[in-house]
Amino acid sequence: MPVFEDVVLEGHLIDSLILPQVLDDILASEGTHQIVSLEIGHGREDVSRATIRIAAETDRQLEQILSMVQRHGAAPAQAGDARTETVQRDGVLPLDFYSTTNLESYVRLHGRWVGVAAPEMDCAILVDPEAMTARTVPMIEARRGDQIVVGRSGIRVVPLERDRRGRNFEFMTSTVSSEKPKALVVGEVSRLMRSTREAGQKIIAVAGPAVVHTGSAPALARLAREGWVDVVFGGNAIAAHDIEVALFGTSLGVSVTEGTPVHGGHEHHLRAINRIRAEGGISQAVQAGVLREGLFYELVKAEVPFVLAGSVRDDGPLPEVITDVIEAQSAMRAHVGDAGLCLMLSTMLHSIATGNLLPARVHTVCVDINPAVVTKLADRGSFQAIGVVTDVGLFLDELADRLAEEG
Amino acid sequence: MPVFEDVVLEGHLIDSLILPQVLDDILASEGTHQIVSLEIGHGREDVSRATIRIAAETDRQLEQILSMVQRHGAAPAQAGDARTETVQRDGVLPLDFYSTTNLESYVRLHGRWVGVAAPEMDCAILVDPEAMTARTVPMIEARRGDQIVVGRSGIRVVPLERDRRGRNFEFMTSTVSSEKPKALVVGEVSRLMRSTREAGQKIIAVAGPAVVHTGSAPALARLAREGWVDVVFGGNAIAAHDIEVALFGTSLGVSVTEGTPVHGGHEHHLRAINRIRAEGGISQAVQAGVLREGLFYELVKAEVPFVLAGSVRDDGPLPEVITDVIEAQSAMRAHVGDAGLCLMLSTMLHSIATGNLLPARVHTVCVDINPAVVTKLADRGSFQAIGVVTDVGLFLDELADRLAEEG
Amino acid sequence: MPVFEDVVLEGHLIDSLILPQVLDDILASEGTHQIVSLEIGHGREDVSRATIRIAAETDRQLEQILSMVQRHGAAPAQAGDARTETVQRDGVLPLDFYSTTNLESYVRLHGRWVGVAAPEMDCAILVDPEAMTARTVPMIEARRGDQIVVGRSGIRVVPLERDRRGRNFEFMTSTVSSEKPKALVVGEVSRLMRSTREAGQKIIAVAGPAVVHTGSAPALARLAREGWVDVVFGGNAIAAHDIEVALFGTSLGVSVTEGTPVHGGHEHHLRAINRIRAEGGISQAVQAGVLREGLFYELVKAEVPFVLAGSVRDDGPLPEVITDVIEAQSAMRAHVGDAGLCLMLSTMLHSIATGNLLPARVHTVCVDINPAVVTKLADRGSFQAIGVVTDVGLFLDELADRLAEEG
Amino acid sequence: MPVFEDVVLEGHLIDSLILPQVLDDILASEGTHQIVSLEIGHGREDVSRATIRIAAETDRQLEQILSMVQRHGAAPAQAGDARTETVQRDGVLPLDFYSTTNLESYVRLHGRWVGVAAPEMDCAILVDPEAMTARTVPMIEARRGDQIVVGRSGIRVVPLERDRRGRNFEFMTSTVSSEKPKALVVGEVSRLMRSTREAGQKIIAVAGPAVVHTGSAPALARLAREGWVDVVFGGNAIAAHDIEVALFGTSLGVSVTEGTPVHGGHEHHLRAINRIRAEGGISQAVQAGVLREGLFYELVKAEVPFVLAGSVRDDGPLPEVITDVIEAQSAMRAHVGDAGLCLMLSTMLHSIATGNLLPARVHTVCVDINPAVVTKLADRGSFQAIGVVTDVGLFLDELADRLAEEG
Repeated sequence: MPVFEDVVLEGHLIDSLILPQVLDDILASEGTHQIVSLEIGHGREDVSRATIRIAAETDRQLEQILSMVQRHGAAPAQAGDARTETVQRDGVLPLDFYSTTNLESYVRLHGRWVGVAAPEMDCAILVDPEAMTARTVPMIEARRGDQIVVGRSGIRVVPLERDRRGRNFEFMTSTVSSEKPKALVVGEVSRLMRSTREAGQKIIAVAGPAVVHTGSAPALARLAREGWVDVVFGGNAIAAHDIEVALFGTSLGVSVTEGTPVHGGHEHHLRAINRIRAEGGISQAVQAGVLREGLFYELVKAEVPFVLAGSVRDDGPLPEVITDVIEAQSAMRAHVGDAGLCLMLSTMLHSIATGNLLPARVHTVCVDINPAVVTKLADRGSFQAIGVVTDVGLFLDELADRLAEEG
Repeated sequence: MPVFEDVVLEGHLIDSLILPQVLDDILASEGTHQIVSLEIGHGREDVSRATIRIAAETDRQLEQILSMVQRHGAAPAQAGDARTETVQRDGVLPLDFYSTTNLESYVRLHGRWVGVAAPEMDCAILVDPEAMTARTVPMIEARRGDQIVVGRSGIRVVPLERDRRGRNFEFMTSTVSSEKPKALVVGEVSRLMRSTREAGQKIIAVAGPAVVHTGSAPALARLAREGWVDVVFGGNAIAAHDIEVALFGTSLGVSVTEGTPVHGGHEHHLRAINRIRAEGGISQAVQAGVLREGLFYELVKAEVPFVLAGSVRDDGPLPEVITDVIEAQSAMRAHVGDAGLCLMLSTMLHSIATGNLLPARVHTVCVDINPAVVTKLADRGSFQAIGVVTDVGLFLDELADRLAEEG
Repeated sequence: MPVFEDVVLEGHLIDSLILPQVLDDILASEGTHQIVSLEIGHGREDVSRATIRIAAETDRQLEQILSMVQRHGAAPAQAGDARTETVQRDGVLPLDFYSTTNLESYVRLHGRWVGVAAPEMDCAILVDPEAMTARTVPMIEARRGDQIVVGRSGIRVVPLERDRRGRNFEFMTSTVSSEKPKALVVGEVSRLMRSTREAGQKIIAVAGPAVVHTGSAPALARLAREGWVDVVFGGNAIAAHDIEVALFGTSLGVSVTEGTPVHGGHEHHLRAINRIRAEGGISQAVQAGVLREGLFYELVKAEVPFVLAGSVRDDGPLPEVITDVIEAQSAMRAHVGDAGLCLMLSTMLHSIATGNLLPARVHTVCVDINPAVVTKLADRGSFQAIGVVTDVGLFLDELADRLAEEG
Repeated sequence: MPVFEDVVLEGHLIDSLILPQVLDDILASEGTHQIVSLEIGHGREDVSRATIRIAAETDRQLEQILSMVQRHGAAPAQAGDARTETVQRDGVLPLDFYSTTNLESYVRLHGRWVGVAAPEMDCAILVDPEAMTARTVPMIEARRGDQIVVGRSGIRVVPLERDRRGRNFEFMTSTVSSEKPKALVVGEVSRLMRSTREAGQKIIAVAGPAVVHTGSAPALARLAREGWVDVVFGGNAIAAHDIEVALFGTSLGVSVTEGTPVHGGHEHHLRAINRIRAEGGISQAVQAGVLREGLFYELVKAEVPFVLAGSVRDDGPLPEVITDVIEAQSAMRAHVGDAGLCLMLSTMLHSIATGNLLPARVHTVCVDINPAVVTKLADRGSFQAIGVVTDVGLFLDELADRLAEEG
């Protein structure tokens, strides 16, 4: 026997593609829809409102469809409270836990909509019904006794409205190509950095060792020094090679001034790590005068924090590297709350890890010479990801010059 | 004032390219050489022997040259004992520590050559002069009081002689191309697996989640069940998606029987991880009858061990995942000692991590659809790496069929 | 002073995304729209109809918008006849010529809609107002005195309705990934080949030399022999290397049975070409008994036509190669009229050339190991392109096996 | 019964790797060698001389080995004259024709060594025994009655000696990586351009449409204007899109000042081509004042010649495009004779075509963002190819700036 439920949609339904996507999802799941009412805004700024009756063959199918359309902001016409269950064992969620998106979300508690703090995807929602608060919690951090939202009802997700600024939008999402005029892209990214800073939001730079190998660590250091980067995420490699340059003049054993391998140079990064370990860490080495230049020297001097997350391919590692990956995620998570922009510079591993933690509202700019990496990273964001297929070395140099010129 | 030292080279100096490489290194470092004596073997099996006088402008330059040519097996004509220094602080090596290659090596102690156990690159050599033993030690595992080899003297490295089996050699090292006849490559790899097993050596499979997404997990499970794989290295993703297939019939939310995304499917891997966490782990889930099929089910049933190394992009993770990357390296290192072959299947991170640990004598076969990954991995091995640019799904299916046909 | 025009849209406006795309185009061009009337079909099969008033600041802007929305099937509410101008000089079109899409199109002549024969993109429309006929004509083939459609009015384009078959659709357009289960893809492509043949339409195979190098020429020959391929498009290289295999047992000098370079082998393709030139051509060489096996031997024997289009990097070339690229386009064009499916097998140059000539209704399947090529080719089709990132060798073998099994 | 022949080798046999390569080739072909005599130069500048006896099982095998080692400069100890046969039919070579390398070569006629003019690979050698001259001839240009060299004897090939300039060498051949410091690469290329010009040799630029799309056509125009480029090779696309920019301000329909698609813009390149066709050609359009800016405008103004070779995917094409690919090869060949350097800028098709025509002594610099293209192109040259994986747009801008700064 068919079951149905009415949902309500409000917003720029048609030109923002929301209505068709909702209808599409229903058909794709083999449900049927009837448009109970539809008021279309005639002009550009008018809001539309639709009530749609969704029918399905089974409860389970209906539940699935409701879960899908909820992601586009469709809320049941009559919403009840969210249901919760109690965690029985540390690190294990109730089987039917609600799995979060990275969008702004609300849960209905005692008849009121409560915002969910710290939006992050692939988490659960932990609620305190007395304090009337809710926040995301990663599976591994759930503790016995926690109240976790289960099922789909009583949850509202606010879709990111497609950017209506017109032409820029088009440029910025279509950029996954190496054949775009790069001078324009540099200009666009510098504008985005400026507007993020003006909005009082932070800029995260996630950087891989290619930044050092291509000779653009000085450009990134300049951005940090001049206040364009608020925190740097990376791994052992970028720090080790940056320090290798500072101590030995080579990166991966290749002379940074001559471009040729230095013999014995393949050992330099190991010796650099050992030297820093002997001092107890990077900042100690700066204080001791052992480390006198380079990106990490500048970060220490400018008091720009950095998080180095370990990976199983690391040599050493440097003392600052967090070798437990769960701890590393927590350390990174502590920096994403007030971010407005994230630059992802030639590192797939750390960029994906960062992308996992970011709220959907954070703009991301992914720069890599490999189009597959750019596509993979840009696909994870929705309307707010710019992918740039280019040489990170030449790109950072131009970006730093541009920002400096414009003051 | 110029300094010089005589070194001796023995082996198939000319057709194995060793002599020219040595002379080349000397010239490249702006040293000069004089061939003091040269006895060339005239026939194919004859050994040649050369004594070369190397001259340089400074001690430091001479030291560098000696370090370079040592990697080709050139030993000083009069060797002294290796020098050692004592570790002063846990995890910090003496500044001038000798950094290892992954080749078979010897150190001279009390006038005798002692083999270095557990060859692994980018380590130090820890010696026990009383027991007359030596082994590699990673920087982070060095302990206060350890005796570590420093400098270059008193060390002999045995170069891998270029494989003289003729044509096969050529085929196997030139394979970094998508345009090779894949049926021949499959045959070559199956022969290599057979000869490894016959030699009583182990076969390691390092596998990424693409093995599951492309539908070839059953083929890898078959190899494990039939004794062609002795240990599996991977990360959280391959296990999570394999278990997602077993519990939900999807991989990354895509139905494995229909190839289409299942709605709500993007949550399946999280739910799969949570389900296994509720049981306490993969083997517990097998015992409890919760996990009844798939690659990891088969590994548990066939008692083939696996090591899952965590990464900062992991969701969950599964209980078996070792979240500390240094511990994960140790767990992997425990399996490489008696390996003869390593199959690297569509995972750059875990393959590089494994490659870091392998002795040079282990053959590696790197299969990936991305030529850049294959090149990067194949470059790390010398004469013993086969790179195969192909679709890991179709490749594993064919390989399992081939091995089964041949019995 | 603003100008406006009313256009009418009919079809599955909402779930096929046509309406939102039209509104979107208008906004993106900084025009404004008012929905004069909208009748939305409530159920799945009902048709919707909308009249939209488009306003712009200038005639030129309005013209641009009308040109854009026409591609979605929006026709002016009151259509006049198409305007034409006369060609003044061979190979030169009137400056304001209407540039075609590859969609089914109509022009209005004497108040009646006349279908445009041979849909092909980037051409002009040549009309014969007396015979009341119209067909596409490439710029270079326009002749003095031809009547060519100019401007935008009096033209209707029938958009390809998004495939409403549900799940398959989703699978087939999302396939641009190496991480899909390839067994499913092979099944999908074999079904498409079967349904094309059942519909009485032709199957074109465009093939590059990688088909020969990967050892899958026998699989393609089998498809041709068994009636699954009606015409083969390629260049000098695939034929030269196929014949090299037949005459010398090598492909690009690499032995196809051993996978190793044969010395002197790099000359084999030149000698193969010279040998065929000595006979006067491929079919003459088959008749003379000089060419006794291989793909082109099979094509000649099975009387499957082929078109070899020359390129500036060709050696030789073979006598059948059409060295004038305009003549080569014409020769290919002669085969696309009754095609229903085009397999593009590892050749970017010839695949793009073929894609330029195909009507939008022809399904295309692009197989290449390089995701950039697949993306580029798949982007040119709309809803009807399947991109498959895989090893063409293993793929063709599986496809031929699958079609043979199913009979 | 084994057969043998003595060959002589002279030069920097050991450090230039020539001797080992010769011995290696013999072993790889399953021949055997005996070093009859070997005089090794002891110092850096001394020349070595070896006589090697090569033995094989059959004449055919010995012939093969001699053909291989000839490419390293090994000449039979007693050379006879080269043998020739007469062409019987236009465009068909004698079956046993000697197939050329792109190295400097000599043929022995009447007991004297005669240089072969116009070195080019994959050609035949046409001799005039009376005039005592020899030159390469492509297969298709052989004419009835021509005397063509057959077999291997009486031919000497001069191997390119490995560049002995030391460090630079290493840098320049190892550059196939996106992770090199690009500022150094730019410096290296500018030095190479300067030294080529100082040597009175020409610089060829082969350029693809990405040069226009990335906005670096002005940089290339600047190089041409300032005398750094002597001839430009390309196809229809680069010229069409350059002229599209000049006439419409878009490249492939994308605004070059705003980076966004202009509606109707996908037709612009067709309209640009048609406009130029109406004038009769690019230079006529410049004279008529129709074309007033852009790369091709500058080439016409600066009287820098260009060759546009047609391809089967061309739209239009422009009148200057040579649609017959054999004629296009001839037109390009006319420019390579006095070239010293060839810049290959983001076009695989035209770069390979050019590479086919170049003597080995010409340096090539291949710039592409796709490492597979760079590898493919760089592999064709020997010691003289630099591959640069980078963004051609940012690269050309930097290169033009660098050359201008240095004056």
